[in-house]
Amino acid sequence: MAQKLTKRSEDYSSWYNELVGKADLAEHSDVRGCMVIKPYGFAIWEKMKEILDAKFKETGHSNAYFPIFIPKSYLSKEAAHVDGFAKECAVVTHYRLKTNETGDGVVVDPDAKLEEELIVRPTSETIIWNSFGKWIQSYRDLPIKINQWANVVRWELRTRLFLRTAEFLWQEGHTAHATKAEAIAEAEQMLDVYADFAENYMAMPVIKGLKTESERFAGADETYCIEAMMQDGKALQAGTSHFLGQNFAKAFDVKFSDKEGKQEHVWATSWGVSTRLMGALIMTHSDDEGLVLPPALAPIQVAIIPIYKGEEQLAEITEKLTPVIESLRKQGVSVKFDDDDNRRPGWKFAEYETKGVPVRLAIGQRDLANGKAEVARRDTKEKNLVDFEGVDQYIVNLLNEIQENLLNRSKTFRDENIREVNSYDEFKEVIENKGGFVSAHWDGTMETEEQIKNETKATIRCIPFTEKEEGVCMVTGKPSKGRVLFAKAY
Amino acid sequence: MAQKLTKRSEDYSSWYNELVGKADLAEHSDVRGCMVIKPYGFAIWEKMKEILDAKFKETGHSNAYFPIFIPKSYLSKEAAHVDGFAKECAVVTHYRLKTNETGDGVVVDPDAKLEEELIVRPTSETIIWNSFGKWIQSYRDLPIKINQWANVVRWELRTRLFLRTAEFLWQEGHTAHATKAEAIAEAEQMLDVYADFAENYMAMPVIKGLKTESERFAGADETYCIEAMMQDGKALQAGTSHFLGQNFAKAFDVKFSDKEGKQEHVWATSWGVSTRLMGALIMTHSDDEGLVLPPALAPIQVAIIPIYKGEEQLAEITEKLTPVIESLRKQGVSVKFDDDDNRRPGWKFAEYETKGVPVRLAIGQRDLANGKAEVARRDTKEKNLVDFEGVDQYIVNLLNEIQENLLNRSKTFRDENIREVNSYDEFKEVIENKGGFVSAHWDGTMETEEQIKNETKATIRCIPFTEKEEGVCMVTGKPSKGRVLFAKAY
Repeated sequence: MAQKLTKRSEDYSSWYNELVGKADLAEHSDVRGCMVIKPYGFAIWEKMKEILDAKFKETGHSNAYFPIFIPKSYLSKEAAHVDGFAKECAVVTHYRLKTNETGDGVVVDPDAKLEEELIVRPTSETIIWNSFGKWIQSYRDLPIKINQWANVVRWELRTRLFLRTAEFLWQEGHTAHATKAEAIAEAEQMLDVYADFAENYMAMPVIKGLKTESERFAGADETYCIEAMMQDGKALQAGTSHFLGQNFAKAFDVKFSDKEGKQEHVWATSWGVSTRLMGALIMTHSDDEGLVLPPALAPIQVAIIPIYKGEEQLAEITEKLTPVIESLRKQGVSVKFDDDDNRRPGWKFAEYETKGVPVRLAIGQRDLANGKAEVARRDTKEKNLVDFEGVDQYIVNLLNEIQENLLNRSKTFRDENIREVNSYDEFKEVIENKGGFVSAHWDGTMETEEQIKNETKATIRCIPFTEKEEGVCMVTGKPSKGRVLFAKAY
Repeated sequence: MAQKLTKRSEDYSSWYNELVGKADLAEHSDVRGCMVIKPYGFAIWEKMKEILDAKFKETGHSNAYFPIFIPKSYLSKEAAHVDGFAKECAVVTHYRLKTNETGDGVVVDPDAKLEEELIVRPTSETIIWNSFGKWIQSYRDLPIKINQWANVVRWELRTRLFLRTAEFLWQEGHTAHATKAEAIAEAEQMLDVYADFAENYMAMPVIKGLKTESERFAGADETYCIEAMMQDGKALQAGTSHFLGQNFAKAFDVKFSDKEGKQEHVWATSWGVSTRLMGALIMTHSDDEGLVLPPALAPIQVAIIPIYKGEEQLAEITEKLTPVIESLRKQGVSVKFDDDDNRRPGWKFAEYETKGVPVRLAIGQRDLANGKAEVARRDTKEKNLVDFEGVDQYIVNLLNEIQENLLNRSKTFRDENIREVNSYDEFKEVIENKGGFVSAHWDGTMETEEQIKNETKATIRCIPFTEKEEGVCMVTGKPSKGRVLFAKAY
């Protein structure tokens, strides 16, 4: 039997790292900061992609593809943008290698130096707005609503699988609009798409809100975000949607003529979610035994394990199970019937538990005789001997129940761990000893935000969209327009 | 009305370039050699991806993702491989920019130089075999059958949209096997998958065969390929599947213990198709009016254009068309009902013709009265006034007919342009004046192949799998084991 995971209560961080490995999701590559996403992990990401992609198309977006390289000068065109990304980017300076002097290796060919260095995209606003400049002349060309599934590179020094890697996969939406109102509506709409995906597929409740100025995307006028709470009480920013104002249109001089023939700069948004969602998914539901997956994102929803001795018993069980498997598949349930002879049932039970398969059905000779089957659910670890007759419908209902239970469970946990405080002492006490999200009044200045961060490591995760209650800042006593959410964050 | 395309008979190359632009498929970016794939072009590529991806999964492959960066030393581990790719690769040497002295731009930070340079992947054998080394210990770990959809970079100096670009999109399959026979069977199977896709979806007939040593993938023992003939008679390599022998296993020391506990190097394959297929698709079917798409890959299969004056007429036509559109969509047909008031019907007709939409249905007031509709097919430009009753089924049948016709048409053209020759003089005459594929005897040496290439610009496209007829080389008179196919190629 493989070694057990470190318990979450002992060391959450080790638990996470071990789980990502044991559930076969991803591993560190030998290339600094870059990960290998293994087939099982990638299958979950593919499900996420498929669902999100359909939602983007439903809301009128088309996929396209822009170059991975960004000329250095493009990055510099938007001042805040280059400040945000220049410090951590991969720079291509040459386009050829040549054999070294001793003939046993290759070196960079100094004669093949690029005139202008190219940056491996950390995000694509600049390269895309350079194209938009060619595409947009008139109001008739607007809106443009594009999405791109791509890899991006940000040279992070401290990396963790899925959560923070030098290269990661993501989607980035980029839209261009004739009016400010339309662009803001687009940014809000995409935030809603993300929130809906998080809650209804990932079974992960999120809080929607605005970022403060210091946490805003480099080049945005406003950043909207969804924030989720992990099991250790820390916050994870699960998706962002930016209202970019006219910043990139001005940087790349993109104007359109309106119906009256007047020239105006175009309004923009961008929005993205990344393989970081994999980390969020893991840290929302999983337990000390391994991964727990919501059925809506599980590559295998039901693992069926026959327990038998010899060919004859297997044939009998298989015959009995075939219509159940067919019925489940017909209803869109993904089933793995595992009759691999090289592994014992106990090994398989452990394997599917580690990999977070939502439902396991086991059936042996005695069950067959009694017209029963054992059905185990991964989320509560409950096991039941149920009637074989109708077990397909039982499983379909159970999958729905599990999806619902996971959302309720994480919502309850999240709500129990949001605490209102009214003094800075209380704030420090809660952040230090209880964790979770703290709802408190703040005076709206970057200075106070910075002070709180330095003294407690907690940052403002978001200014929630919910109703505002006026008050006074817990630190300075100055007026506050409403409570904001603080937390330590991933 | 927009400007017409250059005629294919006048200048095939200009026709191609103009078509890619006018049909809104792609454009050159300002980044040297890199293209922007526009939404309409990307929608076709997405269809290709979806179909191929399903075929890869049906044949037991899983998707995964490996880093975009390859340490320079990895590339060097397989001698032939580094020779093949070192001369045209993008090299990352630094990981940070900093503000320049005048404060108005950014420069590469000399303090942020990488210890070892990273290559932007031109293909992923080396980085993947480095991982396979960690994954494979025993025969139980085999086979591994992985696919990756990714961007790759090869620093091409002369680029053409889709056909040859510095960055392109592709899929690369990488598999590891316990035996040579199994690896060869895999390479052959994937070639069949490609050939089936080319013929049955792209409606593009291909010839399957082996590459000669000089055209082989850098690091392969054998390269299998599918070769297609473009309308100008030139060949286009549409996909390759490589039997890699134990070359990468040896370079990365990947061994497995067999059932008897004996250590052996693993056998490998890799195989890929790329956005180059978009170029092949264009040059197989399109005409002087624009793109022609096979229905199986058309993002819009049917464009429906109402011809009306005023709201009332439009409402009447729309009501009549709604059940037709619903019926088509229910049958999986993708329909665009274009009631955009800003464009005239003539503009729309031209637009859908340029974009290669297989079927166009137009209906006006008089048609409505007569119970008719005009249906035009893009492939033959035939127009028919058909009964409105049952027009949905008429269209479904027509789409099948178009798909079939396109394959037959390109097959006929291809077959008419394969010529057997028996002397080098005749060979030169045919290559020079007729083009197409030339089937001729060759002595099997690289020297003769090189001589023919230098003298005629024709290369050996493949050694077809079909029956072998012995003979003598048209150049040297030495024995030949069978005819091979020569052509000028993209």
